[in-house]
Amino acid sequence: MKRSTFIVALIAFAFATHGATAQQNLFGGQNIQSAVVNADNTVTFRFLAPDAKSVAVAGDFAEVVEDNPIGGMVGTGLIPMTKDAEGLWTLTTKPLQPELYSYMFVADGIATADINNPHVYRDFATICNVFLVGGGMADLYKVNDIPHGSLTHRWYDSPALGTDRRINIYTPAGYEQSGNRRYPVLYLLHGSGGDEDEWINFGRAVQILDNLIHQGKAEPMIMVMTNGHVHLEGAPGENSWGYYKPDHALGRGTAPGAFELSFPDIIKFIDSNYRTYADKAHRAIAGLSMGGGHSMTISRYYENTFDYVGLFSAGVSQRQSAEGVYANFDETLKKQFDNGVKLYWIGIGTDDFLFESNKQLRDKLDGMGAKYTYLETGGGHVWNNWRIYLANFAPLLFK
Amino acid sequence: MKRSTFIVALIAFAFATHGATAQQNLFGGQNIQSAVVNADNTVTFRFLAPDAKSVAVAGDFAEVVEDNPIGGMVGTGLIPMTKDAEGLWTLTTKPLQPELYSYMFVADGIATADINNPHVYRDFATICNVFLVGGGMADLYKVNDIPHGSLTHRWYDSPALGTDRRINIYTPAGYEQSGNRRYPVLYLLHGSGGDEDEWINFGRAVQILDNLIHQGKAEPMIMVMTNGHVHLEGAPGENSWGYYKPDHALGRGTAPGAFELSFPDIIKFIDSNYRTYADKAHRAIAGLSMGGGHSMTISRYYENTFDYVGLFSAGVSQRQSAEGVYANFDETLKKQFDNGVKLYWIGIGTDDFLFESNKQLRDKLDGMGAKYTYLETGGGHVWNNWRIYLANFAPLLFK
Repeated sequence: MKRSTFIVALIAFAFATHGATAQQNLFGGQNIQSAVVNADNTVTFRFLAPDAKSVAVAGDFAEVVEDNPIGGMVGTGLIPMTKDAEGLWTLTTKPLQPELYSYMFVADGIATADINNPHVYRDFATICNVFLVGGGMADLYKVNDIPHGSLTHRWYDSPALGTDRRINIYTPAGYEQSGNRRYPVLYLLHGSGGDEDEWINFGRAVQILDNLIHQGKAEPMIMVMTNGHVHLEGAPGENSWGYYKPDHALGRGTAPGAFELSFPDIIKFIDSNYRTYADKAHRAIAGLSMGGGHSMTISRYYENTFDYVGLFSAGVSQRQSAEGVYANFDETLKKQFDNGVKLYWIGIGTDDFLFESNKQLRDKLDGMGAKYTYLETGGGHVWNNWRIYLANFAPLLFK
Repeated sequence: MKRSTFIVALIAFAFATHGATAQQNLFGGQNIQSAVVNADNTVTFRFLAPDAKSVAVAGDFAEVVEDNPIGGMVGTGLIPMTKDAEGLWTLTTKPLQPELYSYMFVADGIATADINNPHVYRDFATICNVFLVGGGMADLYKVNDIPHGSLTHRWYDSPALGTDRRINIYTPAGYEQSGNRRYPVLYLLHGSGGDEDEWINFGRAVQILDNLIHQGKAEPMIMVMTNGHVHLEGAPGENSWGYYKPDHALGRGTAPGAFELSFPDIIKFIDSNYRTYADKAHRAIAGLSMGGGHSMTISRYYENTFDYVGLFSAGVSQRQSAEGVYANFDETLKKQFDNGVKLYWIGIGTDDFLFESNKQLRDKLDGMGAKYTYLETGGGHVWNNWRIYLANFAPLLFK
């Protein structure tokens, strides 16, 4: 069958069977369930491609991959699928550990999304499908039947950057009904390959806080997720540039330290618009990768502003031109600890390319007698670790 | 080259070139820009697939498709792409009219997302890429550099349904700073193939209101987007079922009229939690397809609750078992108009499969001498029309 004829037939079939209640989607939908998590925590993938010669699943569950041609570098394996007489490719994995997993298909050498799994997350310039195997810590990543906080997408005015910027604010369950009660604030920052939305999607930060607070393990707190790329007003697709492909090169012209120097605008906005305790004892700042570097700098540069600091796989190397907010690193770091920090928390995976620079930071802290908390995990510079770090960090705050 | 070797090489290359600042995505990213809108409103698509025999774009811009094998049924054409020596497939379209467009690729008969365009929207159980050609009405769909409202994802308690449910609430720019000022409310409902998030994504409702309000064309108003599927607490992936593929069959066991009968819970929640004018003169209800049917029923059943009603490609056929909220249709409809309705707005496309049933409703309204506003467009049961209907309807409210 000619390819174009085949797909046309497929589309026509899909619309004919979809019935009169659905709108006319491009691909009206195949009656196929994929990335189905079975009772024994095996996962079944399905992909209809009668003419394909080979189809494989590329996923971040490499520990169960029998033949992983990539090795340890990426932590992503390719698992071949099997074709039946109708051209349906299937694969059922071994039982998977509880986790939020990412995957795509590779059909005849072409990477493609699983169009039968409508759950697709964007991470900077890339997309992939997700599924969740529950149990253990992964239950923190679920929407459970408990009271839920609210998540608001707002815009704040940044005089330092001369623009309005998009910001995401989580308020815990009961905030709206709690009268004059005030709350502490966690500022949670993203990595270089991200924006204000990434802790919401891959990070599951809303679910983690909802669940930890409901379980009594974390204090009810406000959580603020802002955009650390100063050349952007907000996430791609949510700013005036429209729909475009993010590119790291786009931000290269911005002044070093510009985000850190604009951070007081954010604190002012939050303290003016939410019922916060506007003091050091009730402020935490944490971030992953670049956002960990931001957290280190901001908490050090603005004296007596944060009692809680979290560095998740953080970019902690000192700048070549140590000027402005980056100047006098050792002295200001020592001063930060002399002034008092209730929690300085460092988490990193043993396979992370930033492991060594974090080791150097820890050596420096040890050398100056600074107390910090350290969590070393397996794995690399990946979301699995950052969710674990947030879930470990949040219960230690504001107690 | 063996397929698996090729893709492994591709991934390794992507990670090697992506540098130390990015996290380890499954597909680290190809240095390819796709769905680029050019200055003359042509659009260039690119797709790297050296081993593919044919690649085409399937898009909802059929008016510029030279060879559309599907005909008028779906409004989606296939446009063949051209391969270069490096295996990069490209296509530049004719100039496109201003619009938010949807598309996917079809590679060797397999429908696939464009992984070089990270903007993917979900509509019920399907996904597709999007891009926007600006100008004219499409500028209303853009995030422009103007004051922005806030969008909050919250959960409300529904005693009628015995559960907490997710709800999206837009408050216009300045709401938070406007002291005791009260606002009118638009309740905006989705179709059978949707949930509380669909007006936010494909519907661009937040951008449409931001822009119309800023231009002085619409009154500042609160907009409430709720979930009309009573078997769901919220959108797929945002409820306690986790990540799953939505299926129309899942809701079949729910009692007819259950959503309509639970609607007072929503009004009560909004009037209790926001600074509304809690009266008929300041309430509008509108929806697309199933949500248009909901709007018709709710505004008719709850007397003197809504002064503004919008039926967008609405499902207006009367039920076989006209009981409960569906009973006494003609009498209650007449009573609604006798009580007074400031605006009863009907919009539908000439190709819509619901055109005839809407014609019958209009005949009935004509027969009883009821005044309504009617907008007939081209096209079918598609998002292009629903965005246009909202943009036409919102300026008529609360004046």
